[in-house]
Formats: sequence, C-alpha cells, structure tokens
Amino acid sequence: MKVIHSISQMSICSRKIKANGQSIGFVPTMGALHQGHLSLIKKAKRDCDVVVISIFVNPTQFGPQEDFKKYPRSFANDKKLAQKAGIDFLFAPAAEEIYPSNYCTYIKVKNLDERLCGAFRPGHFQGVATIVHKLLNIVQPNIAYFGQKDFQQAVIIKTMVRNLNIPVKIRVLPTVREKDGLAMSSRNRYLNEREKKDASILFQTLQLAKEMVEKGEKNSAKVISGMKKILGRVPDAKIDYVSIVNPENLEDVRLIDKKILVALAVWIGKVRLIDNMLIDEKPETRMTNGE
Amino acid sequence: MKVIHSISQMSICSRKIKANGQSIGFVPTMGALHQGHLSLIKKAKRDCDVVVISIFVNPTQFGPQEDFKKYPRSFANDKKLAQKAGIDFLFAPAAEEIYPSNYCTYIKVKNLDERLCGAFRPGHFQGVATIVHKLLNIVQPNIAYFGQKDFQQAVIIKTMVRNLNIPVKIRVLPTVREKDGLAMSSRNRYLNEREKKDASILFQTLQLAKEMVEKGEKNSAKVISGMKKILGRVPDAKIDYVSIVNPENLEDVRLIDKKILVALAVWIGKVRLIDNMLIDEKPETRMTNGE
Repeated sequence: MKVIHSISQMSICSRKIKANGQSIGFVPTMGALHQGHLSLIKKAKRDCDVVVISIFVNPTQFGPQEDFKKYPRSFANDKKLAQKAGIDFLFAPAAEEIYPSNYCTYIKVKNLDERLCGAFRPGHFQGVATIVHKLLNIVQPNIAYFGQKDFQQAVIIKTMVRNLNIPVKIRVLPTVREKDGLAMSSRNRYLNEREKKDASILFQTLQLAKEMVEKGEKNSAKVISGMKKILGRVPDAKIDYVSIVNPENLEDVRLIDKKILVALAVWIGKVRLIDNMLIDEKPETRMTNGE
Repeated sequence: MKVIHSISQMSICSRKIKANGQSIGFVPTMGALHQGHLSLIKKAKRDCDVVVISIFVNPTQFGPQEDFKKYPRSFANDKKLAQKAGIDFLFAPAAEEIYPSNYCTYIKVKNLDERLCGAFRPGHFQGVATIVHKLLNIVQPNIAYFGQKDFQQAVIIKTMVRNLNIPVKIRVLPTVREKDGLAMSSRNRYLNEREKKDASILFQTLQLAKEMVEKGEKNSAKVISGMKKILGRVPDAKIDYVSIVNPENLEDVRLIDKKILVALAVWIGKVRLIDNMLIDEKPETRMTNGE
C-alpha cells in the first residue's frame, strides 16, 4: 500500500493507472475507519483493479459549533486497517493543500441540501459536495463508494454527479450495524457504554416504522408519532428530526403509497447520531395498484 | 467534421480519443463565430491532436432582462466556419439535455463573481462556471481556450479549475480586434453602422489609459476620470463601469505600482459592450524598484 499526501502525486498515479487500462475504485473517508468503511472497500476490491481510499477530515463540512476539532483521528490505526484490507493507495492530503489561501469555489446542490440534516447543519452539504468533487477530480475513479447511513449525502452526490456530468459511477452500499442495530459510525467512539446502549433506540425506532408500514399504515404522521414515542423511552435522547420522505427528492411524504425513506437525527447526550431505512409500502397494496 | 448533439455520444468520442493517446483541445462558444473564436481554434489545432468546439447559448448565464432570446444564433453558418477551420468535432447539445428538469447543481466562485460585470449581472458567472465545468466533464479536454476579451470569465474559470482540481489546462489568448480597435464579439452584430463607429470609443479609452500609465500616472482615479471624459464624447454611451483592478483578484487598485487591468463595460445604445487591457506600470519605475 502506498501512502500519498500530495495532490499532484495522487493525480499522476491515477493517470498512470488509467493509461494502463486499469479501473479505479475509490472510497472517500474522514478516517476512524470502521466495518462500514471496510464493507465499501471490500466491494471496491471486487469491482475494480485498483482501490484508493482517502482520509481527510474536511473542515468545510463542519459548522462553527460542531465537532471538527475533536472528530476522531486515528491515522496510524487506519493505516493498519487499510493495509490489511488490501488497499493499493491511501491518499491523505493536508488541509492547506486541499484549501489553499484564497480558496473560493463551492458547489451547491440546491433544495436537496436544505432538507433533513441540511436544515440543522447549514453549509454542511456544500462542504461535502465540494470536497467529494475535488477528490473525484484528483483520484479520477471509475466507481466511488458511499454508505447508505449517510443517505442524504449519497442523494446529493448522485445528483451532483448527474448534473455536472462527472464521469464516475456512484455506488451506495447498505448500512453496516452492530449486533444491537446501532449503525456503524466514527462518531460512535464518542459514546460511553451507557450511551452506546441507549443509541440502539434509533434502530428500534426505524424497525417500528417498518412494522407499522408493512402492517398497512399509510399515514406518515401516525408512524412518526409512534417513532417519537419510542424515542421518548431514552431520557437523554433529543430529537433533531424524525422524517418520512421520498427517497428521490427527500420531500416530505404524507400518504405512504410508494417506497419511502424513514430518516432521523437524534442526540444521545452530546453525540448527534443519524440513521435511516428504506421501506417498501405494504406489498399487497402495490399489487392492487398495479392491476 | 462530426456534429454531435448528445452528451453521451460526445463523452464516448472523447473517451476513445484519450484512450488512443491523443490530446483534445476544446473551444467552448455560444456560436455566432467570429475571428476571436477562430484565433482560439487555430491555437487549439497547433497544440492538440483533436479539436472540439461547442456551440451552446447557455440560458443560466443570462439575467431575466437580458438578451438570451435575441442572442445571435447562426448554426448553419457556424458549421461552415467550423468545417473550414478544420475542427474535428462540433458539439451542439440541446438545452433540455444540458439542464434536465429538476436540475439543481451550481458552482460559485465567491468574491471574484461579484466584481466588475458581476455587480451588474448577478448570477451570470455562476451560470458561466457551471456550464464550463459541465462541458469540461463531457469533453474531457487536455487544454481549453478562452479569449482575453472576457477577462473576468477567464479569471473565474482559471480559479475554478485550480480550486476544484479539474485536470485541464486553461489558455487565455489575446483579444482580436477590428481595424478601428473594436473588440470582436458576437454582440457586435446588434450594432448598426453608426453605433459600430461609436463603439470604437471603448478601445480609444483603453489606449488613453495605457498612455497615461506609461507616462507615469500612478493615481488610478485620475486615469479613470480621463477615460470617462473620452467616453463622454459619444452621447449614446452609458457607462456601467470603468475600473482599474489587480488582474489576479480583480480588486480595485488605487496606486498603480504593478501590472493592472483596465476594464470597462459601456452601453452603446441598447448594446452592452465590454473590453479590457492589461497595462504594465511605467517601465523605468520598475527598474528603479528592482535596484
């Protein structure tokens, strides 16, 4: 595994790989690698000749009150995990190289960036879209991999790629979970034992939604109210949002008559966690509609 | 010369050319080709194996009160000129393919897009940056060519390319002028005989600035006031701006102690014209500074 810190060196390597007729699979990360990242890497290795991951804690996607400074950084351990996972290139640029002084270009994916987490984290998705596009231009992958846990991020990146005609395929892979259902996330490292236990309430809440919809509940307000009741069982849980949306455009859904995304952001103590689930409407109803 | 209307077909052609180890030179245009465009094409032919030009009147860079609808369109004639110039591919996509419904991704080059023309045409440079980036992603050129007449556009595109790590070289070539100094522009077609004569006042004004600076004038306010006096000779001329700026960041310059850009936007009747000139400070002064 080659570790690269400079943008120009990474570009040169990518150009050589492509000139050799080899394909590049790319997994952009902020480090603190976990099983979720490793599942993306595994898929990239299956699909592509060469696998590149990036580790870059992107300052522009954190708000001024957010956890940029204390975001978990574990480069030595990440390097070991990456090596073990069989990665070819680990790209870890310095912030000053990614954002030199006078940096001033930003990508905005309108509307989509204001819903769900966007309403609570202004500027976050502009930071995400911009860094992902920069990394795509530097690494020039054939396929880039993202986790479904960050569903809104994935929708925004897919939209950006389609809108700007970026020559890359985006693959979104299922969320990897702990045994109790907690979605893998670098931020889980912030949780103490008690909070980690409490945090499984997010998955339980999503499962309740799934059960309700599969039993035929069509009124999303009722589903959301049921979910909030469950979340109320954890005294330390503070809800940012519990939403049922159209997975294509992230707009609120009132009547559940097709595939939906149930998404939530909940603080457990001082840690903000997100999770989501795609839920098909009650199968029988679909058949009736189809007739 | 192959004429291509579909994005996917253009991408496939570009990919094949690059896979063959050939270089692509690209000249994006809005059509109504003139000698300025042809000088860019000539240079592209000298530099690159394959030359692509695009013809696309980009709706997102026109304001609601601007001349999008009546912007000169002369596809049949442009095709002839392109063929004669020895172009390999003419890419002329439909607006619906470039901006499908629900299109929502835009690129903003902050600060630079608010100066000079940006102050009079809000949103213009966001439209320019976005379409140029889309075209670069579709055509995948090694080098893209722009005219110095649109100096601010060139600065914004160079900044975007550097900031977003887009793998392309940007070349900016000198403004091509009529015998009387009028800068070539598709919009010159709007001018009647009288107005066309009047329009040469823009170049005369820039020349006065050059003379003043070369004679040692260091006070940009005095140069600007001299320029405005000359423009006053044409009763139909209405000034949007006459500015002396730093050509790197387009910020106003008060004391002329290094290379400057003199730029102006002036209405001649109902036609808005722009022009500019790079002017070195008085050579002797530079030598003194260097000692």
